Amino acid sequence: MQARFIHRCTHVLDREATIAFYEKALGFHVVRQSGPADGSWTNTFMENDASPFQLELTWNRGRTEPYENGGRDTHIAFAVDDFEAYHKLHQEMGCIEKENPAMGLYFITDPDGQRIEILPE
Amino acid sequence: MQARFIHRCTHVLDREATIAFYEKALGFHVVRQSGPADGSWTNTFMENDASPFQLELTWNRGRTEPYENGGRDTHIAFAVDDFEAYHKLHQEMGCIEKENPAMGLYFITDPDGQRIEILPE
Repeated sequence: MQARFIHRCTHVLDREATIAFYEKALGFHVVRQSGPADGSWTNTFMENDASPFQLELTWNRGRTEPYENGGRDTHIAFAVDDFEAYHKLHQEMGCIEKENPAMGLYFITDPDGQRIEILPE
Repeated sequence: MQARFIHRCTHVLDREATIAFYEKALGFHVVRQSGPADGSWTNTFMENDASPFQLELTWNRGRTEPYENGGRDTHIAFAVDDFEAYHKLHQEMGCIEKENPAMGLYFITDPDGQRIEILPE
């Protein structure tokens, strides 16, 4: 019996802004998108070339109330090959939430406030 | 520039119960555990043989208030090679939160209420 860890799902208010964020901040691309013909909701699956583990972004038309994706007690993490280059990129994007130079890492947040740890490989 | 998606962190109230849950429910094992010498907190990293993507379980001594790990708007997902065997195991464990036979999947919850989707490979 094997259970393969395949994705992490969050709900997003602005689908296009979130897709653009993960494309620019972490090199992700859209793998597939599903949902009903009326377009009332979609599930967008994204990944990048460094790992097969995917993000699932669930979007519902008309939703304005923030989603319960978790607070400061949870995060996802990425190990990057060029820490300085990513740090510069994320500074330019204005998405750095917290620096932790003592531990050699920092956190960014996505458009819905999901916390993302960035650390060197 | 490459960003490798490496782990998902949640905070847990009962470290031993949570480790035992992931061992039994999804075949995980502890890879490493870190924290200060006084044992006031620990970070436990777990994975299984089907994927290198890890869970990080952060535990703080004395905490009793539930953590903000996210509500029903978020989940993690596993693709399993023997859907019937896992379903029977999770029934026996009493951790099934929601069945979705129309979509051929179901959700379980870990001891802190994190939602976990189980679907066939």
